[in-house]
Amino acid sequence: MIPDEDFITDENIPGPTKEEIRCMVICKSEVSPDDIVVDVGCGTGGLTVEFAKIAKKVYAIDRNPEALKLTEKNLKKHGVYEKVNLIEGDALQILDSELDKVSDTIPDFDILMIGGSSGDLTSIIKKGYKKLKNKGKVIVTSIMLETRVEAVKTLQTLDMIPEVVEISISKGRIVEKGTMMLARNPVTIVSAKKTLIY
Amino acid sequence: MIPDEDFITDENIPGPTKEEIRCMVICKSEVSPDDIVVDVGCGTGGLTVEFAKIAKKVYAIDRNPEALKLTEKNLKKHGVYEKVNLIEGDALQILDSELDKVSDTIPDFDILMIGGSSGDLTSIIKKGYKKLKNKGKVIVTSIMLETRVEAVKTLQTLDMIPEVVEISISKGRIVEKGTMMLARNPVTIVSAKKTLIY
Amino acid sequence: MIPDEDFITDENIPGPTKEEIRCMVICKSEVSPDDIVVDVGCGTGGLTVEFAKIAKKVYAIDRNPEALKLTEKNLKKHGVYEKVNLIEGDALQILDSELDKVSDTIPDFDILMIGGSSGDLTSIIKKGYKKLKNKGKVIVTSIMLETRVEAVKTLQTLDMIPEVVEISISKGRIVEKGTMMLARNPVTIVSAKKTLIY
Amino acid sequence: MIPDEDFITDENIPGPTKEEIRCMVICKSEVSPDDIVVDVGCGTGGLTVEFAKIAKKVYAIDRNPEALKLTEKNLKKHGVYEKVNLIEGDALQILDSELDKVSDTIPDFDILMIGGSSGDLTSIIKKGYKKLKNKGKVIVTSIMLETRVEAVKTLQTLDMIPEVVEISISKGRIVEKGTMMLARNPVTIVSAKKTLIY
Repeated sequence: MIPDEDFITDENIPGPTKEEIRCMVICKSEVSPDDIVVDVGCGTGGLTVEFAKIAKKVYAIDRNPEALKLTEKNLKKHGVYEKVNLIEGDALQILDSELDKVSDTIPDFDILMIGGSSGDLTSIIKKGYKKLKNKGKVIVTSIMLETRVEAVKTLQTLDMIPEVVEISISKGRIVEKGTMMLARNPVTIVSAKKTLIY
Repeated sequence: MIPDEDFITDENIPGPTKEEIRCMVICKSEVSPDDIVVDVGCGTGGLTVEFAKIAKKVYAIDRNPEALKLTEKNLKKHGVYEKVNLIEGDALQILDSELDKVSDTIPDFDILMIGGSSGDLTSIIKKGYKKLKNKGKVIVTSIMLETRVEAVKTLQTLDMIPEVVEISISKGRIVEKGTMMLARNPVTIVSAKKTLIY
Repeated sequence: MIPDEDFITDENIPGPTKEEIRCMVICKSEVSPDDIVVDVGCGTGGLTVEFAKIAKKVYAIDRNPEALKLTEKNLKKHGVYEKVNLIEGDALQILDSELDKVSDTIPDFDILMIGGSSGDLTSIIKKGYKKLKNKGKVIVTSIMLETRVEAVKTLQTLDMIPEVVEISISKGRIVEKGTMMLARNPVTIVSAKKTLIY
Repeated sequence: MIPDEDFITDENIPGPTKEEIRCMVICKSEVSPDDIVVDVGCGTGGLTVEFAKIAKKVYAIDRNPEALKLTEKNLKKHGVYEKVNLIEGDALQILDSELDKVSDTIPDFDILMIGGSSGDLTSIIKKGYKKLKNKGKVIVTSIMLETRVEAVKTLQTLDMIPEVVEISISKGRIVEKGTMMLARNPVTIVSAKKTLIY
């Protein structure tokens, strides 16, 4: 994984997702070189860059144009800009499969990564699910109590079996006296695989 | 427990020990109204105040005169100043039972609380052990990897059975969108009871 | 706190609440010798015993008669049986202030402790709130994602400000090679104080 | 990562390292297809399999012949047996670069993974360091307090800068009432890169 400090940051934009959490998300996503990824709420672009390093194509969505500019900078810095389409706007509208007027149409995809949902999590998962390929994965990361529960419930209504993993990381800061352990906020990753049975 | 924000603080002095950790230390100490407590490295005085609320007498030691002034302020604020002797200096010398020149002699005590030891942890425990009453408790709190191990090893050389508890706390910050969980640094409490067998 | 192993247990009945969690609940509850406590879902009676050691009176409720028998055993073992009323039944009905037919009427109380709610958490909090004295406390403990969120939301609808604390504990098992750290399941304590403004 | 339940296990042999920890170790190791990995204390072979899926060659060492048999089974099950040399014996002797009598000589390697060290951690790191290529990585995983400290100290004597990450994972078990969060033991990963300056 790319060290946290190798991302360009902006104090008004959340992220980057910490190294250890990016690592775990990439593992849980099972992303492969053939995959198309949709990254909702890309923020600083930490996960966008990691997905782009492996996937065929990433569609990064954010409502905040400043977040997209920052993601663009980080994609360029890490040499994966050409693999990513940056889309400004509301994920709910962008994912709407019936809105064929959307110029930047997103094809069916393998991974739906939701790091920020502006209160529309349930709808985004449901809309996204329609365009998610069979065996595709939905991944929701959050530090909010409510988001985890909403993700679990929504995935269950879609007959997906959510896996819930809460990750608490402490990192050592080595000082003269020894190794101080400093905590990072616990992140919960809710993930599920689409499994259609014929 | 007293809320964290009810302590007067100073950015150059560590503490106060967070509410939840003070709670756990008080539980593990089994402090009672008859007890005499020695608090080594009192810092802001968070634990000093909590012990003083219950114990008969607390001897608070710190090398840093500014820490003692801050502890004094917090003791006065919380109405328990008269129960505490503040001692500036090196815990190792102050605890030395053979140094009867020390004006502010500390009697045998029930609880040896070590929150800061300036690299002398082993010696402080060993010196303190001599003046610790039978059934008395040693408690060491730390966020350093090395301190835990040193405490465990030293207590074992004294034939004490250390209990090690690592406590990770996250607290909810309620914002418009929901409840963000924010981590506090993990603290490890090593404690042991002196049990002489005759 | 009473060590976990000093409670009589039954594999079919949850509990006792682990020592460190009992410690934190007692701290958060601010229980005092004048207090009346209602303990919903008492299970093994771990928290019931701890509250009874301090409070004036505890009303322990459980749907499961076997849980009440076990709680009774633990109360007797720890010498606090006479301070506790054991009530078999549905907390929702028992707390209903309008049901004056209930023989074992519960007076207004200072602490509403909810350790198990059988799916009725919202209703129990709302019913209980009516009989909770001003400055009284509601405390909900849980290892379930959904319960935390339900507790937070319900307390907010009652204009209470919930405090959310997630506690992860690891305890050292000392073996020949060193100190193995073994995790306990993380427990979340949601608590709030009733504050009427006149 | 391979799900935990896809490994063949034996109650007398530790492991497999849990999925999330394997994920984090693989990230921290930065293992690539050109790499040679030495896996000391392979146990069930969980990490051996993951390394073998990516690396060019893995040398898996264990004192316990039963552990090696189990690792062999898991390597075969996951189709990576041909990439691994299984070596029974004492890591300290096997890593000794001057013992050229050792038939199964290990070439200089890129990653030294130590999951079990039978009390020889310091010596294993020091011996291993000599055969570790420049920019190679040492990784030590442990649930023991003492091991972390020993790893940090030893790496520092070799002028390596240790990174210490403690990982606490809770996983959701979805039951009728909701999502119970169950803890796994916290694992600490100490890692460092060899950086020779000419």
